[in-house]
Amino acid sequence: MITKGKTFIISGPSGVGKSTVLHALLEGRDNLYFSVSATTRTPRPNEVDGVHYHFIDVHHFQELIGKDEFLEYAEYVGNFYGTPKKYVDDAMESGKDVILDIEIQGAVQVCSKRPETVRIFIAPPSWKELERRLTARGTDTPEKIQERLIRAKVECQTANSYDYFVINDTVEEAVAELNAILCAEHCRPSERISQILNRE
Amino acid sequence: MITKGKTFIISGPSGVGKSTVLHALLEGRDNLYFSVSATTRTPRPNEVDGVHYHFIDVHHFQELIGKDEFLEYAEYVGNFYGTPKKYVDDAMESGKDVILDIEIQGAVQVCSKRPETVRIFIAPPSWKELERRLTARGTDTPEKIQERLIRAKVECQTANSYDYFVINDTVEEAVAELNAILCAEHCRPSERISQILNRE
Repeated sequence: MITKGKTFIISGPSGVGKSTVLHALLEGRDNLYFSVSATTRTPRPNEVDGVHYHFIDVHHFQELIGKDEFLEYAEYVGNFYGTPKKYVDDAMESGKDVILDIEIQGAVQVCSKRPETVRIFIAPPSWKELERRLTARGTDTPEKIQERLIRAKVECQTANSYDYFVINDTVEEAVAELNAILCAEHCRPSERISQILNRE
Repeated sequence: MITKGKTFIISGPSGVGKSTVLHALLEGRDNLYFSVSATTRTPRPNEVDGVHYHFIDVHHFQELIGKDEFLEYAEYVGNFYGTPKKYVDDAMESGKDVILDIEIQGAVQVCSKRPETVRIFIAPPSWKELERRLTARGTDTPEKIQERLIRAKVECQTANSYDYFVINDTVEEAVAELNAILCAEHCRPSERISQILNRE
């Protein structure tokens, strides 16, 4: 009997190093599915359909909204982005845990549909360090960085609705904590007691 | 700043191998305190005060009950047994996690006083295996073993009030799961968000 997978939302402010942490978490593990979003945005030259995004047209996207086929979706700068239920459910049915890399607003949508979803927030070790990481990235103006820092503090305050709060001081420690959380969440009585009681 | 420790209750049916698992969990770790119970029972020849039990007289025990100095207590075959708050609190203040090896009834008492206590139930991989372990122990009659098996099944059913359910198939796996649970429980937002927000 395959034990069904669980869904984990990972959120965190811009510059916290979430992509690096998730890349390290997923490396060499075939029991984790990283959810690929659907979007109506035009693919960039290096982007592959089904890998970076599921690229679909607006008509199809709205049809999927009508059929309640998204766990969450949003419109951003004239394009739609969303998490299709289908791939998440297929992965869970096959016994894989699912990682959703989404914002706080998306997390609220997912949890209103599926309250059992585990929410993990990734935070920086300090604001000075987040500023350093944002500066080192070299993609934002100093004003934009200050704006991101303010937003990051607000996000951290709202993260008390999350189940877990992982501090990304080093990638190794953050990955170790994420692995511990995934393992611990599979030790919940709800899924295990019935397994045991049915054994001889 | 020292992060305060947390208290973890470990319960499980007779013969499940809880002592072996806890011994392996505690080995070489100085950040875990295994709570020593107080009792009014007379020490056995090999028992050391403060190691196996805190041996105290009935008058003292009842005085401690009156002062609400126990997290839980019970009378069993004419003797009192209880978990003194003092040692648990001292360990937590010094940053150590505390392990309480107590029964389901004791767990209910502790959690009514301290709902934040994390409860972990250790279950056997199957009833046949529990029977085998109880038989191998050689301390019970076949009738007593059947009685213990029935009680173990009832305990497993009531364990849905626990936070975690660890199956002791191998000691290594059970210890790995306990370590993951302890690690994950330290990733709760309640204790971490304020730390981060107070940093520069």
